[in-house]
Amino acid sequence: MIVLGDSQYGKAGVRLLRVCRDHDQAGGDAHRLRDLNVTIALSGDQAATHLSGDNSAVLTTDAQKNTVYAFAAEHGVDQIEDFALLLARHFVTSQPAISTARVSIDEYGWEPVGGTGHSFARSGREIRTAAVTHDDAGPAVTSGLRGLILLNTTGSEFWGFVRDRYTTLPETTDRILATEVNASWRHTAADVPWERSYLTARELLIDAFARTYSYSLQQTLFAMGRQVLEGLPELAEIHLSLPNKHHFDVDVSPFGLENSHEVFCPSDRPYGLIEGTLTVRGES
Amino acid sequence: MIVLGDSQYGKAGVRLLRVCRDHDQAGGDAHRLRDLNVTIALSGDQAATHLSGDNSAVLTTDAQKNTVYAFAAEHGVDQIEDFALLLARHFVTSQPAISTARVSIDEYGWEPVGGTGHSFARSGREIRTAAVTHDDAGPAVTSGLRGLILLNTTGSEFWGFVRDRYTTLPETTDRILATEVNASWRHTAADVPWERSYLTARELLIDAFARTYSYSLQQTLFAMGRQVLEGLPELAEIHLSLPNKHHFDVDVSPFGLENSHEVFCPSDRPYGLIEGTLTVRGES
Amino acid sequence: MIVLGDSQYGKAGVRLLRVCRDHDQAGGDAHRLRDLNVTIALSGDQAATHLSGDNSAVLTTDAQKNTVYAFAAEHGVDQIEDFALLLARHFVTSQPAISTARVSIDEYGWEPVGGTGHSFARSGREIRTAAVTHDDAGPAVTSGLRGLILLNTTGSEFWGFVRDRYTTLPETTDRILATEVNASWRHTAADVPWERSYLTARELLIDAFARTYSYSLQQTLFAMGRQVLEGLPELAEIHLSLPNKHHFDVDVSPFGLENSHEVFCPSDRPYGLIEGTLTVRGES
Amino acid sequence: MIVLGDSQYGKAGVRLLRVCRDHDQAGGDAHRLRDLNVTIALSGDQAATHLSGDNSAVLTTDAQKNTVYAFAAEHGVDQIEDFALLLARHFVTSQPAISTARVSIDEYGWEPVGGTGHSFARSGREIRTAAVTHDDAGPAVTSGLRGLILLNTTGSEFWGFVRDRYTTLPETTDRILATEVNASWRHTAADVPWERSYLTARELLIDAFARTYSYSLQQTLFAMGRQVLEGLPELAEIHLSLPNKHHFDVDVSPFGLENSHEVFCPSDRPYGLIEGTLTVRGES
Repeated sequence: MIVLGDSQYGKAGVRLLRVCRDHDQAGGDAHRLRDLNVTIALSGDQAATHLSGDNSAVLTTDAQKNTVYAFAAEHGVDQIEDFALLLARHFVTSQPAISTARVSIDEYGWEPVGGTGHSFARSGREIRTAAVTHDDAGPAVTSGLRGLILLNTTGSEFWGFVRDRYTTLPETTDRILATEVNASWRHTAADVPWERSYLTARELLIDAFARTYSYSLQQTLFAMGRQVLEGLPELAEIHLSLPNKHHFDVDVSPFGLENSHEVFCPSDRPYGLIEGTLTVRGES
Repeated sequence: MIVLGDSQYGKAGVRLLRVCRDHDQAGGDAHRLRDLNVTIALSGDQAATHLSGDNSAVLTTDAQKNTVYAFAAEHGVDQIEDFALLLARHFVTSQPAISTARVSIDEYGWEPVGGTGHSFARSGREIRTAAVTHDDAGPAVTSGLRGLILLNTTGSEFWGFVRDRYTTLPETTDRILATEVNASWRHTAADVPWERSYLTARELLIDAFARTYSYSLQQTLFAMGRQVLEGLPELAEIHLSLPNKHHFDVDVSPFGLENSHEVFCPSDRPYGLIEGTLTVRGES
Repeated sequence: MIVLGDSQYGKAGVRLLRVCRDHDQAGGDAHRLRDLNVTIALSGDQAATHLSGDNSAVLTTDAQKNTVYAFAAEHGVDQIEDFALLLARHFVTSQPAISTARVSIDEYGWEPVGGTGHSFARSGREIRTAAVTHDDAGPAVTSGLRGLILLNTTGSEFWGFVRDRYTTLPETTDRILATEVNASWRHTAADVPWERSYLTARELLIDAFARTYSYSLQQTLFAMGRQVLEGLPELAEIHLSLPNKHHFDVDVSPFGLENSHEVFCPSDRPYGLIEGTLTVRGES
Repeated sequence: MIVLGDSQYGKAGVRLLRVCRDHDQAGGDAHRLRDLNVTIALSGDQAATHLSGDNSAVLTTDAQKNTVYAFAAEHGVDQIEDFALLLARHFVTSQPAISTARVSIDEYGWEPVGGTGHSFARSGREIRTAAVTHDDAGPAVTSGLRGLILLNTTGSEFWGFVRDRYTTLPETTDRILATEVNASWRHTAADVPWERSYLTARELLIDAFARTYSYSLQQTLFAMGRQVLEGLPELAEIHLSLPNKHHFDVDVSPFGLENSHEVFCPSDRPYGLIEGTLTVRGES
């Protein structure tokens, strides 16, 4: 017998720019921006539409999109965790057929420029993220970032690894270590000072990457995760996905030049990919 | 206490072109190609490298990459499921510290051109996929595809859905239905005639999409999954992820023209995303 | 003194799906599709809007987009060259301030599937292109394609090149030759049987690539261009841009295996890029 | 008769990370980075390889790539304009068959983090660019940037445009104006203080965008170009390509909410594209 297992549906890629038209004390513009990409996934009792095309329990993905804009108008947008909490709760509490809502938000950064109070430039490559899953147990919140590219020009060794028939990699006591940090951390509460928490986590990730004398990217990963969990005791868990952005030392000796460990070829593909989760285990 | 939870590491994006230099009966070239993108993820007892940078249990991701090329040279490459099985088994059986290996392969298609026996053109946009997870329980194989874009110009309605405060979508009894099929199906065996199975699954997906008179993309998804599971009794499960590639009927009446349901604007973003799993439940 | 030099403006990325709801003799569906991406660039006397923001000579890019949909509704879409001719002529003849219009169109292919007469699958990776420039001299038409990936597994040598201080590349008498063909050819007329011409050009490009025993990609480029110009005497010129999609022979000897010239690593970057134009020079 | 017209060949996408291992006064690390993507295109008398596959005048694209790494090792990399000048001159002066060399460089930014002196984070989305064309007339240098995204939340009107049959756009006296600046400016000299010049140009572009009360993006474009040319008298010309990153005011009145011009939908496609060149004309 063929049965419907897990299923979900929703709207992905809802782009929203929310402008807050504040003024400064002199009456000039002091506008603020939130620039988001919202994705919604709902699940629950959706058997009817799958089995017979009966849509009476389907909240359209178009209405989900509209809800994002309506909530932005009515409630404003400050921290993305709060906005995701609001949306996720709405879908679960207003739709009987929806038992779980997951709202994921990417936020793109902007910074004021030009001194006008209404002019901005996109800042940075990295994206701040939040995801709220709201089900019978209530909401669960994760925060994170992706696209933060870090590099150490020294302070990284790699040796003592397995040498099987297919191993040709030489050992090294000085290599470039670079990665693009993709991290998400799970909160134990839903009323955290989100911005401060985010900035702290980001700073701890960077600091641990920079200051860990590394014998493997795995070791650096663990150090980064530990430093975040230690610095933000409210957290329950952190997941890190760290592609190893290889930089090959170019051999310039064929050109009659001396290698001085200063000329590198960054390589995109293939790439090592190191992934790990660190968990806070309760002490009793 | 902070502990290491799930972790894995491996090489992603290992590109391989395997040429088979066969000849036809007249002694002319009858070459064949396999063009793959291989990703390996290993897990097991990797605590030492995370906690202290002791790499004595680490098979380098560089050696993993080398293994792909060495196996391609030694064993050739025919069906990607078999090649993934071979690789996954190797890592688990040869490395004491590795208890689980997941090998995922994308295959890009080529077709002969020019009548030379050694000339080829890349065919199609879609990608055939396979993934093997090998752990204590032995290997588990999934096959699939992604990037198969399908469209019906009629035979799709959408009405009778929930109308909440944020619903503005009009009901329709004739819309374009389009999606990009991303599907993977789990086998109950590891010695399937892979190519025939793949071609059958692909054909059934297309046929079900085309022939289902649709009242929702969910209904179409279920019909597609069911048709594959019914047609290939060896399968245990199929997962489908179907973005709704919206095509908006352009209103040309402001230009003094009559709408005839013939001019559409394809829209990339935002998009509905419908995902579901169908499972074969054993009858006893 | 600072003056405005060349300038142009327009709408880019106008997506259009035009459905033609034909029937077969039995009254069943025999629908046809055209799936386009249209880009318009207009130029002429546009000084006022640049210098003072006076928009009285500006046809909005929104209206340009609307024109695409309106023309698709009113005139239908058959060959993209004809559709581009129609649009380009319209802008130049209807807008006094516009002296030159360039309309570029990408066409994505679809093929019928499922036997329903209204079901389609996207076909192939390559894109058919057309561009019409309409100015005082009337319209000029180019046709082309991009994204056609071709590969020869043999029949390609590369040796006898300059060896300077920085040359380390070994000579070879048997290498893989692969490229992604990006070609455009200029017509001498505006009333060509476009589809037949296109299919002929495409076939000649493939045939010349496959059948040319190659000593350099430059030689192959010239052979491809010549074969198109010879086969389609109506053409005036062809431009080819051929990235050299390098495939490196993987050395498997470190793994105790024999190199047999069958295992290759496709490399994306960096890549050689060979570009050239072939022109028909009138004989007198 | 079919003849070879313009042709060029070269290596594209040569990635280079140049590390400078300086020390601070206390002997600690004070490393510096240059992260480049170099593209080379050579042209000259290349008929032989095209017509007969005789490669005796071909400097391989592999050697071109090697030259980038060798020059980075031997000469270091400071300003990208200087590095491009060095490379372009080398190809033209060392290869008799090469009469023109064009070297284009993209530079990705990094900033120090973590206080270690050897740790860095990628900064910003924008890319600094330089291109040197060296031919019989000597070198010509352009500098530029791309990927600088700017947005004004107010201070932009758009009205008084042509209203033809296909114009439906309402006039507005307050819209969001946003663009991604792609700019390049041509120098009259080859010994400019490149970094200061670049930073000045960038600042002037931002300042002009922010401070121009805009009636059209064309007007803003001209103001941006003029401000750069006026601020850097050494320049001869500037080219700007400004996609209009539309932000649509979302109508929330169907949800019983009041429109307050605060909720916008950023739209990627289609997009207006405004391009223009400003030239300094000599006064006599």
